[in-house]
Amino acid sequence: MTDFAATKAMFHLPKGVIYLDGNSLGPLPKSAPNRVTKTVQDEWGEMLITGWNKAGWMAQPSNIGDRIARLIGAEKGHVVMGDTLSIKVYQALASALEMRPDRKVILSDNGNFPTDLYMAEGLIGSLGRQHQLKTPAHGDVADHINEDLAVLMLTEVDYRTGQKHNMKALTEKAHAAGALVIWDLAHSAGALPVDLAGCNADFAVGCTYKYLNGGPGAPAFIYVAPRHVANVRPALSGWLGHAAPFAFDLNYAAGSGIERMRVGTPPVLQMAALEEALDIWDMADMADVRAKSIALCDRFIAGVEASCPTLKLASPRDGAQRGSQVSFHFDNGYPAMQALIARGVIGDFRAPDIMRFGFTPLYIDEGDVDAAVAIIADVMGNDLWDTDEYKQRSRVT
Amino acid sequence: MTDFAATKAMFHLPKGVIYLDGNSLGPLPKSAPNRVTKTVQDEWGEMLITGWNKAGWMAQPSNIGDRIARLIGAEKGHVVMGDTLSIKVYQALASALEMRPDRKVILSDNGNFPTDLYMAEGLIGSLGRQHQLKTPAHGDVADHINEDLAVLMLTEVDYRTGQKHNMKALTEKAHAAGALVIWDLAHSAGALPVDLAGCNADFAVGCTYKYLNGGPGAPAFIYVAPRHVANVRPALSGWLGHAAPFAFDLNYAAGSGIERMRVGTPPVLQMAALEEALDIWDMADMADVRAKSIALCDRFIAGVEASCPTLKLASPRDGAQRGSQVSFHFDNGYPAMQALIARGVIGDFRAPDIMRFGFTPLYIDEGDVDAAVAIIADVMGNDLWDTDEYKQRSRVT
Repeated sequence: MTDFAATKAMFHLPKGVIYLDGNSLGPLPKSAPNRVTKTVQDEWGEMLITGWNKAGWMAQPSNIGDRIARLIGAEKGHVVMGDTLSIKVYQALASALEMRPDRKVILSDNGNFPTDLYMAEGLIGSLGRQHQLKTPAHGDVADHINEDLAVLMLTEVDYRTGQKHNMKALTEKAHAAGALVIWDLAHSAGALPVDLAGCNADFAVGCTYKYLNGGPGAPAFIYVAPRHVANVRPALSGWLGHAAPFAFDLNYAAGSGIERMRVGTPPVLQMAALEEALDIWDMADMADVRAKSIALCDRFIAGVEASCPTLKLASPRDGAQRGSQVSFHFDNGYPAMQALIARGVIGDFRAPDIMRFGFTPLYIDEGDVDAAVAIIADVMGNDLWDTDEYKQRSRVT
Repeated sequence: MTDFAATKAMFHLPKGVIYLDGNSLGPLPKSAPNRVTKTVQDEWGEMLITGWNKAGWMAQPSNIGDRIARLIGAEKGHVVMGDTLSIKVYQALASALEMRPDRKVILSDNGNFPTDLYMAEGLIGSLGRQHQLKTPAHGDVADHINEDLAVLMLTEVDYRTGQKHNMKALTEKAHAAGALVIWDLAHSAGALPVDLAGCNADFAVGCTYKYLNGGPGAPAFIYVAPRHVANVRPALSGWLGHAAPFAFDLNYAAGSGIERMRVGTPPVLQMAALEEALDIWDMADMADVRAKSIALCDRFIAGVEASCPTLKLASPRDGAQRGSQVSFHFDNGYPAMQALIARGVIGDFRAPDIMRFGFTPLYIDEGDVDAAVAIIADVMGNDLWDTDEYKQRSRVT
């Protein structure tokens, strides 16, 4: 059983703050400052260039990848770190499209995080605009899976509503139609159990600064299924993905496995912070995290609905259909969220009208939920929310 | 006049080490540990998600870009940070090729750093293999510029020999033939004066962990000439390059200027360290750096040639033709460099037979050069270098 009091004690949480935005940027592991200082002073400062081997910097993208693999149900040796999530989306999509050269449809949904769609758009432009990107509503995705489909590319958990896709069912349906599937785990990794191997996912990507608590600018990860990796052509064929980076050959030869998805020099200081966050994750069982996450979300929904009739639930009521966040619709959501932040309840606003709150059992408990609900009830009880001033503030953002 | 004693005092240089590998990874600015700690504890720890605005993280890629612009002769507002140099090469090349749709030749040279060639190869693969990448020898590049050429893509300073290209002359010749030019400044930024605007360069890219001393994994930069930027289609069209990233539109609309070359979340901890390094650069005049760099390199060449007849100069003898490094050919270069490193003289080895030493006036002075020469003479005087044991060690690397 995961000891959530112990994990909570390992984070620095500012006084007077109830942090319900770990789904945007996780908080600081208490051990991270010393570790980063050690990396800066003892590794960079003392080892200089030899740190790449002596301090193990060069191997970190794979070593950290293995630690994340455990949290997302990936086979060991098939996840590697680097770049940003946007770049990893591009890498996965470029490789996947080449594996289905006769098909020209990419299917996503209109709730996908925009950068995934933008990166797809950019790639389509480079590939000569022969591909079509379809973005139906969340519930209509399955109906668009047919034998024209090259790649299904979805974020498992909708960043606005928290609504989950059925990863296993959609992957099966796409495979039955002969398509490949890329899962973006931005709001899944560390939020709920993921079983990439069990779902037969082809590719997956994700970031580490949200639920994984790796810090601002922490690197992204990419997964390629073992059955594919030897045949994947890396479109972003950088030297650290080369079979022999230090041979300095003029021609590219892809590394033997997931290493080929590395591109350039990894961010050593960011990786140091991320490793400290993963030490806390080593104390956690994802099934426990999920059970507590659903309980916290349910408690929050009940509390807010009982006290704030103007807020309309935007997330699924059924915990099994949600990620680890709860969202409400509110016309004046932007200034209302600013008012909450001023009172120490940090969530975030997503256009056009979503007030979003993330629940992260590693450091948020029932007491935090109850305290947050009380403050939200107090702030939302302010009848200013219907005045023109607030409506105006809402519109200009 | 730059006060090099003052700049040297601002770096941490380990005891017993003469660091001639700042062309691979620059040393630690003494102020960087405190700054990084402040960013971790006071910004990430206390501000959490609000750090993106309150601590200015979101604006850093452009603000830092402006500080680097001064060092490379770029117009203010036309350099932005992010990703790795490999990714920035891909971005620049993808955009440039689209600006010359009827031409299918990319010209580089066989001394370019391999990742530039690999990224080009990867892009050519995605574009349908219609383009040809030519890599003649350094001195033959100009002869290959003709009206078939789409993009000339060169690293100004050869990473092995330190030999410089003539940026202005080659850019002019390429433009006269109707081609575009991308300059990789990996071994130029902070090494010698660069005048991107004066040379009419179209694109430039570079890294910040070498001469600029930004630390392991520091982000790369990209420059797009003011006359082009509004017409550049970003192939890597990430959300932070969008005209309105937080509007979360489903369709991409490129940002108004160089901001469109941003992709995903920037590495906040790395940027903090880099800013400290740039504070030292603010004390330096590039003309002074260049004059001292040439003097140090000349002094090193004279000293080594006088004492080590087995080492054959691989760099141009004329300082005006060199970057800020000196390389020697030596068959047993790999074990010889290991022996030097064991004695505290840190340079590096580049296959097949290059012993490479970087000279960085901000923290290397004449006394360091003389001390390094004495140690090299002592180590190279060891007659073991001709034995089979060393030849064997050299071959297996």
